[in-house]
Amino acid sequence: MPNTLKTKGYAALRAHSSLEPFSFERREPRDHDVLIEILYCGICHSDIHQARDEWGGSVFPMVPGHEIVGKITRVGKAVTRFKSGDLAGVGCFVDSCRTCSSCKQGLEQFCTEGMVGTYNSVERDKKTPTFGGYSSQIVVDENYVLRVSDKLPIQNVAPLLCAGITTYSPLRHWKVGKGSRVAVMGLGGLGHMAVKLAAAMGAEVTMLSTSKAKEADARRLGAHAFCLTSQDGALARLEGHFDLIINSVSASIDLNPYLATLATNGTMVMLGVPPKAVELQPFSLIFGRHSLAGSLIGGIAETQEMLDFCAAKNITSDVEVIPVQKINEAYERTIKGDVRYRFVIDMKTL
Amino acid sequence: MPNTLKTKGYAALRAHSSLEPFSFERREPRDHDVLIEILYCGICHSDIHQARDEWGGSVFPMVPGHEIVGKITRVGKAVTRFKSGDLAGVGCFVDSCRTCSSCKQGLEQFCTEGMVGTYNSVERDKKTPTFGGYSSQIVVDENYVLRVSDKLPIQNVAPLLCAGITTYSPLRHWKVGKGSRVAVMGLGGLGHMAVKLAAAMGAEVTMLSTSKAKEADARRLGAHAFCLTSQDGALARLEGHFDLIINSVSASIDLNPYLATLATNGTMVMLGVPPKAVELQPFSLIFGRHSLAGSLIGGIAETQEMLDFCAAKNITSDVEVIPVQKINEAYERTIKGDVRYRFVIDMKTL
Repeated sequence: MPNTLKTKGYAALRAHSSLEPFSFERREPRDHDVLIEILYCGICHSDIHQARDEWGGSVFPMVPGHEIVGKITRVGKAVTRFKSGDLAGVGCFVDSCRTCSSCKQGLEQFCTEGMVGTYNSVERDKKTPTFGGYSSQIVVDENYVLRVSDKLPIQNVAPLLCAGITTYSPLRHWKVGKGSRVAVMGLGGLGHMAVKLAAAMGAEVTMLSTSKAKEADARRLGAHAFCLTSQDGALARLEGHFDLIINSVSASIDLNPYLATLATNGTMVMLGVPPKAVELQPFSLIFGRHSLAGSLIGGIAETQEMLDFCAAKNITSDVEVIPVQKINEAYERTIKGDVRYRFVIDMKTL
Repeated sequence: MPNTLKTKGYAALRAHSSLEPFSFERREPRDHDVLIEILYCGICHSDIHQARDEWGGSVFPMVPGHEIVGKITRVGKAVTRFKSGDLAGVGCFVDSCRTCSSCKQGLEQFCTEGMVGTYNSVERDKKTPTFGGYSSQIVVDENYVLRVSDKLPIQNVAPLLCAGITTYSPLRHWKVGKGSRVAVMGLGGLGHMAVKLAAAMGAEVTMLSTSKAKEADARRLGAHAFCLTSQDGALARLEGHFDLIINSVSASIDLNPYLATLATNGTMVMLGVPPKAVELQPFSLIFGRHSLAGSLIGGIAETQEMLDFCAAKNITSDVEVIPVQKINEAYERTIKGDVRYRFVIDMKTL
């Protein structure tokens, strides 16, 4: 049996349980691995869905966390891209097959053999469970590790590894640039990043919200316009307006009136996962050649591009830093939407 | 009151009634108009939906028909593109605003003021009703009239004006070409054109059908493969395979297993209009960055491109020619799917 690294963390021991302190073993770094001392880890809503087995198939014990920023403390002998002392990030996956057409296109998140999730997954050996970033350290193949600038406050960088790339990738894929008309539905962890990134790309950004209370913050984050969708006729006045709608709402709402606000050839991209099936009227798509699309995080190269873009544009996430002991409280507040806009765990408190 | 042209046709006089002989007036050709003696007119399933007011908002009396081929018998004094004796076609619309961004892009079907439908619509004056191609003649602005090759049998060309462009446009928009993997759902008026056109564009075409009886015909029309979707595991074996699915099914079926057959970045285009809302699982789109899109006929320039493509490749619709007196029987047979693959009315029989 090879040597292993004793690691501290917080885990859900079974579905629906609270998270609690948990000790486990990491592998020793192999030739292509780096060992990262985790400094901050964001709390993503999908951590909660998985810890509570709301999507099915969760494996316990589970150490969640895939918005990881830390410092490299050891490198395997074949590592070329990092050295001890470098800042580094890890996002939603830590490996993939590297040979399928998706991997070869840099779309490792769609690996046909399945990406290896940072947690609640198994390694490429199909049996070793993966444990995430609510922990003191992590060992990852350097090809799945991101470079992190030292010019930005790293606790604010952590959420970029999921919330940042999840919104950046569709903005790039659907070619948002100067003059694009972009709407953002939902002002939470994802939505606030979508507003910042779309504005930084030169788009005209409109926040679509059911809550007037969000307007000031939306504008502070970069939105040029605000539509109170609960107001009579408000959406109808925007008919045919948007090139792209970033839909970060994970509640089950009627998307058809929103689809009507798309311009000819416009697309709505779903990032959230509502609990129920979406009910779509075919005419919502047929008139105007509209598309309803999905998007899932982004590949490694694009994640690096996003981090570099954010460093160049001085963009980070708005966060509330908490000690690890407050995870369970933070989960409850996240579910209620009581966070602006992302909880980040200070792992020194472990 | 200007002179008018006495015109014979067949009309639905009210919702749900049979069609019967009907006389009405067409305007005299204005400077930019051509007068077309109608030779053949296809029967589109949407004629039936509208004649029976199944989509709501139908206006009666209604002379349906938007797959029109005929001969030009008179031209207005400013007409430059046609002369008497030319073959000509008219599709689903006969005017649009010509100034909105959609019209300027050649996407008149998405005119922001609304295209003027060939029937069941009103002219740009917002009051004069339009009457379609189940009639002896039609007067149309030359800019909304298509050139028709004399190299093809024109009764087989008529359905290209709707079924042809409806399938050609998404194949072009989603850049189908040599090596593209295209699936076609539904082998009817639209589906049989999708198979022919996709094959002619160089795609690898797979027919997806619940009926084994369709296989021989699908292959005759150009399909390279056939998937009997009702067979256990048949769709699952095609997971991740298709770049584009042309969905011409207008029944309400579960699209989610079909969406799983899309490759990364793949799109399903809906052309039919199921009576109920589509129920979509968000993960069907999110994994693989899939899109569900709609498409509606095509603009004038693209319709001409399609007709020229069909003339060059010797592609037409498979039709059953009927006398006008058999319209009501043809409607019943169309609803039952008992036609290979389009009824076309011989207007000489009027």
